[in-house]
Amino acid sequence: MKFGIQAVIKAAEGKGDELASIMLQAANLLSTMDGCILYLVQQSLTDDSKVLITEVWDNKASHAMSLTNDNVKALINQAKPIIVGMEHNPAKVIGSHGI
Amino acid sequence: MKFGIQAVIKAAEGKGDELASIMLQAANLLSTMDGCILYLVQQSLTDDSKVLITEVWDNKASHAMSLTNDNVKALINQAKPIIVGMEHNPAKVIGSHGI
Repeated sequence: MKFGIQAVIKAAEGKGDELASIMLQAANLLSTMDGCILYLVQQSLTDDSKVLITEVWDNKASHAMSLTNDNVKALINQAKPIIVGMEHNPAKVIGSHGI
Repeated sequence: MKFGIQAVIKAAEGKGDELASIMLQAANLLSTMDGCILYLVQQSLTDDSKVLITEVWDNKASHAMSLTNDNVKALINQAKPIIVGMEHNPAKVIGSHGI
């Protein structure tokens, strides 16, 4: 079963662009990894401190494996100090147009 | 500028599967429309009443145009009675892997 995530990550005030930039680096890094079908980084138009992440993986294990990668861990550690909140929904993929 | 949306739509208790099915019909319908780059339907693994929608459009006007389509309106009307809440973030696309 395909495994997905939809998350809203809230950066400290004034840090939305920096967080978006870090998450875009994550997208580029994950594009080289097995099983990553989609990694989309958006930024809310109504609150630029909110970075919106949508992920689709071929299965849950591929996602879990990605988190053990040293470069991914380094990006997480870079982001942590500027993150003040997160809403995180692990999900099953029902269907899509576009991927 | 590419225009995106990330939304969490909460169905009435026991109606998550029905809402997911309606939103999947929306995905199939929008796939035929100009400007729809991504329409992803997921369902939360921790609360199956939550249907997660991620959209990417070539611009905001294409998205607005889709909402004037009679078949889209019919699906919205079909979904409305079983929707009890929504978090909706219009967004700019920062970047992605996979689309």
